[in-house]
Amino acid sequence: MPVSNELLRCDAWHQLASEADRMGRAKFHLRNLVMEEKRLERFSLKGGGIFYDFSRQRVDPFVMRLLWELGACRNLQAGFQAMVRGEIVNRTENRAALHTAARSFSDLPVHVAGQDVMPEIRRVRDQIRRFSQEVRSGRITGSTGKPFRDIVAVGIGGSYLGTQFVASALEARALKGMRLHYLSNVDIDNFGQIVSDIDPEATLWIIISKSYTTSETTANTRQATEFMREKGLDPARHFVTVTSKGSPGDDPANPVLQSFHMFDFIGGRYSVSSAVGGVPLSLYLGYECFERFLKGAEEMDIHAATTPVERNIPMNAALLSIWNNNFLKYPAQGIIPYAASLSRLAPHVQQLYMESNGKSVTASAQPVECDTGIIVFGEPGTNAQHSFFQLAHQGRPFPIDFIGAISPCHDQFRSLSKGVTNHQELWANLLSQPMALAVGRDSEDPARHFSGNRPSSTLVLDDLSPENIGRLLSFYEARTVFEAFVWGINPFDQFGVELGKTLASDIRREMAEKNRDPEHRFDAAHPIVRAYLDMLFSKKT
Amino acid sequence: MPVSNELLRCDAWHQLASEADRMGRAKFHLRNLVMEEKRLERFSLKGGGIFYDFSRQRVDPFVMRLLWELGACRNLQAGFQAMVRGEIVNRTENRAALHTAARSFSDLPVHVAGQDVMPEIRRVRDQIRRFSQEVRSGRITGSTGKPFRDIVAVGIGGSYLGTQFVASALEARALKGMRLHYLSNVDIDNFGQIVSDIDPEATLWIIISKSYTTSETTANTRQATEFMREKGLDPARHFVTVTSKGSPGDDPANPVLQSFHMFDFIGGRYSVSSAVGGVPLSLYLGYECFERFLKGAEEMDIHAATTPVERNIPMNAALLSIWNNNFLKYPAQGIIPYAASLSRLAPHVQQLYMESNGKSVTASAQPVECDTGIIVFGEPGTNAQHSFFQLAHQGRPFPIDFIGAISPCHDQFRSLSKGVTNHQELWANLLSQPMALAVGRDSEDPARHFSGNRPSSTLVLDDLSPENIGRLLSFYEARTVFEAFVWGINPFDQFGVELGKTLASDIRREMAEKNRDPEHRFDAAHPIVRAYLDMLFSKKT
Repeated sequence: MPVSNELLRCDAWHQLASEADRMGRAKFHLRNLVMEEKRLERFSLKGGGIFYDFSRQRVDPFVMRLLWELGACRNLQAGFQAMVRGEIVNRTENRAALHTAARSFSDLPVHVAGQDVMPEIRRVRDQIRRFSQEVRSGRITGSTGKPFRDIVAVGIGGSYLGTQFVASALEARALKGMRLHYLSNVDIDNFGQIVSDIDPEATLWIIISKSYTTSETTANTRQATEFMREKGLDPARHFVTVTSKGSPGDDPANPVLQSFHMFDFIGGRYSVSSAVGGVPLSLYLGYECFERFLKGAEEMDIHAATTPVERNIPMNAALLSIWNNNFLKYPAQGIIPYAASLSRLAPHVQQLYMESNGKSVTASAQPVECDTGIIVFGEPGTNAQHSFFQLAHQGRPFPIDFIGAISPCHDQFRSLSKGVTNHQELWANLLSQPMALAVGRDSEDPARHFSGNRPSSTLVLDDLSPENIGRLLSFYEARTVFEAFVWGINPFDQFGVELGKTLASDIRREMAEKNRDPEHRFDAAHPIVRAYLDMLFSKKT
Repeated sequence: MPVSNELLRCDAWHQLASEADRMGRAKFHLRNLVMEEKRLERFSLKGGGIFYDFSRQRVDPFVMRLLWELGACRNLQAGFQAMVRGEIVNRTENRAALHTAARSFSDLPVHVAGQDVMPEIRRVRDQIRRFSQEVRSGRITGSTGKPFRDIVAVGIGGSYLGTQFVASALEARALKGMRLHYLSNVDIDNFGQIVSDIDPEATLWIIISKSYTTSETTANTRQATEFMREKGLDPARHFVTVTSKGSPGDDPANPVLQSFHMFDFIGGRYSVSSAVGGVPLSLYLGYECFERFLKGAEEMDIHAATTPVERNIPMNAALLSIWNNNFLKYPAQGIIPYAASLSRLAPHVQQLYMESNGKSVTASAQPVECDTGIIVFGEPGTNAQHSFFQLAHQGRPFPIDFIGAISPCHDQFRSLSKGVTNHQELWANLLSQPMALAVGRDSEDPARHFSGNRPSSTLVLDDLSPENIGRLLSFYEARTVFEAFVWGINPFDQFGVELGKTLASDIRREMAEKNRDPEHRFDAAHPIVRAYLDMLFSKKT
């Protein structure tokens, strides 16, 4: 029996389809649901350090019970525990998926192919701690003796999006004068903008690439190396690498200050708790702050692995996402943190979720017989209210995750406007939006009519501490993995990026040939590509 | 006959529906279409300073002809010209929509209600030119005589997203040492982060609000005023306003350095070419640069207003978007500039498009009988390839606008990696992705199978000059407006944000009362809201 059909063998799946059918708009309107007594108490959860409110989702107790049955039928809990134990859950690549081990502070071993990986994880963490302390204190400096104050993380996709999310979320805790830059894009303007802004003598480049063969990162490393040499600075004293043991970035023939190892059992988009995030974040925020972040993530990992479905926050979030996607047919989801410092949460989750769950085949290579991952996007509130919320209220509906923090970072500014502080004004909006979307408002004037019935969840953190940023990260990771497990897809591979790479290689070869031989003609290329290559080499559209 | 039905009376609309039906995947696969001779020549356009390639859209000549007929049936050209002439096209608010006048350098008058608005537009432009030159040269300084070097644009939504897009696109041209900050979010952490980073003596605050009553901007202005006073600095010497004539921000009782007027005939999301963008951009980039940007926009405006549908770039883009949305049923669109400096294009277009076209009623208040605006999102390439492109290739498909520039800003860095420059590597990817998405690749291994048939357009600029940023801005504005005109909706109002504001007002009142009277209970609030208010005032989840 192919895996794809296993999902369709779950009774709950078919019952959910009938529920979605049967419950028409009129009966099932959120306006009626949110008026029910104890709606919030019955449709919210506390655990893993956060509060999760799904009282404005289009569900009733019966739908929730079916979703829990679906979770049981798909063995979500057992699958997650197998992942945490180090089993080969990334079957297409024959690897474990152990981002949870990267933030484990337990004494228990985690075995991959018979070997406990924890000692090596602890060794790297310790290396990060010592190195970051020595850089921040000025004991390790650049080749001219200047302390490092410009950190450039060179890496793309999962090698920087998670780090950027965490670094910007905790920016207020950064060492005064320390700056963190991201050189991700192969576009030379990314490089040009950064080098126009840094002090080369005070610059530490962190080259982050598992294989050390990523085209973008290789090209940017080349530019950075030549730039430093031109400035008379020794790259070996200004570079560190985060890479796999034995990769070209871990070769004594290419000397660097230090190499930090990453592991094949942690994929890019899940890697911020490994050295990928650990090195830049510890330099920027301090190792203690990074460790607090890891401990928050660990707490949510344990919640996700051990809490029964009825009270498991990321598992319920995943099942509600399946309900919204596969049954209520919403093709997208908004992530709207009412916190300016979480401005990079949506781009991180966008990668994490869309790269993990944008698949059409199961882990055992059967076509999935239903829709899989949705489109994830977002901007912080209240900004988003003045941007795309017109469409959220009166255009095509999409579910939203609202996120709030009870206490802000900068609580010292408390001037009142209209009788409230800025933080209270922020919350007045955060409370009004889910209700406006859910309830709507009838009006004689069709332009002012709000149909409502638009679902959302609200996730509340006590504050924006490193622990809570870790919890939030782990929440979205676990939610992503649980959804994949429902469909039976592998959330840890990404074969979908390969065709583009292959075609780019062919085009690169044509360009390189033209660089060597100006007489080279692009006759072998597809006519459309050829027209562009001619345009590019003649510098005219 | 209600307007909503006028669309359904266009023959082309019904014929397009049959085309979408009839042309099944097999026959209509992009793989076959892009192999046709002269595909690029036949499905691309040059004009208004840009090159627009729609050869990888799922269209053939017959579909294009029907789309042009639809455009004719919906009077797109006449509607656009009426807008440019100053007619009351924003009928629900009884206003003109004259963002094009803000960048007109023609001597011709533009009449609104019998009055030529051009003299006033020229006066404000001239005021911006003089003020920005005096600030940049150090003739106008803060109250302690320090030149202004930290510019804080205080405004939300359309009052900053366009400015942020243009400023980051042209960052390489900014005055050395001049920094532009955006205080948009009412979240106190937005304010806290900025004031921890600026030199108050060198700070100029630009308060941008048409009505001068936007809650977020009022609250942030209050914080900024008190902050400056605490630092012993006179707000009157450190503030300017961009606001409507006669608003509270244009009241001599609240003295400021200068007030720049904005007009009721330019809506927020279309306002970057008015004083809203003009003041911050001229301070940051110089007035000459801002004027070059305006002139590029003007060129595209003229192209959009005067070019017949067959060769009109934004009109074709709009009609293709309608085809993808209403007929091929794609619910979203990606905007992927292969240019790091265009990183804020997608958030700007997201607001511009989703706030304009996320509507359910026509301009004459009839329900629209088809889907309207889609979800717009994006990140720069190549970054996006390592983020959500897995889903674009193997998950649920969505059309993409690819954007490239023949020449980068920082062309001096030309080290080769794999035989090509970074800029060539960028283009190798930009050329490969539309082809990979369109053509796909069959594979025995289902995990490595690419179904293809995924549409995209490619828009090419010669370079990232101010003129070209202006053309790009105008292109997306015109495309947005043309789509609205197809559906018969009003792209200039935003009644959909009102319900949230009303509910937020009620909640603010409860909070203000509690601030005044700690014994106040939230009995009048909805039980869900009440639970949150209790949580917030006890500072515990």
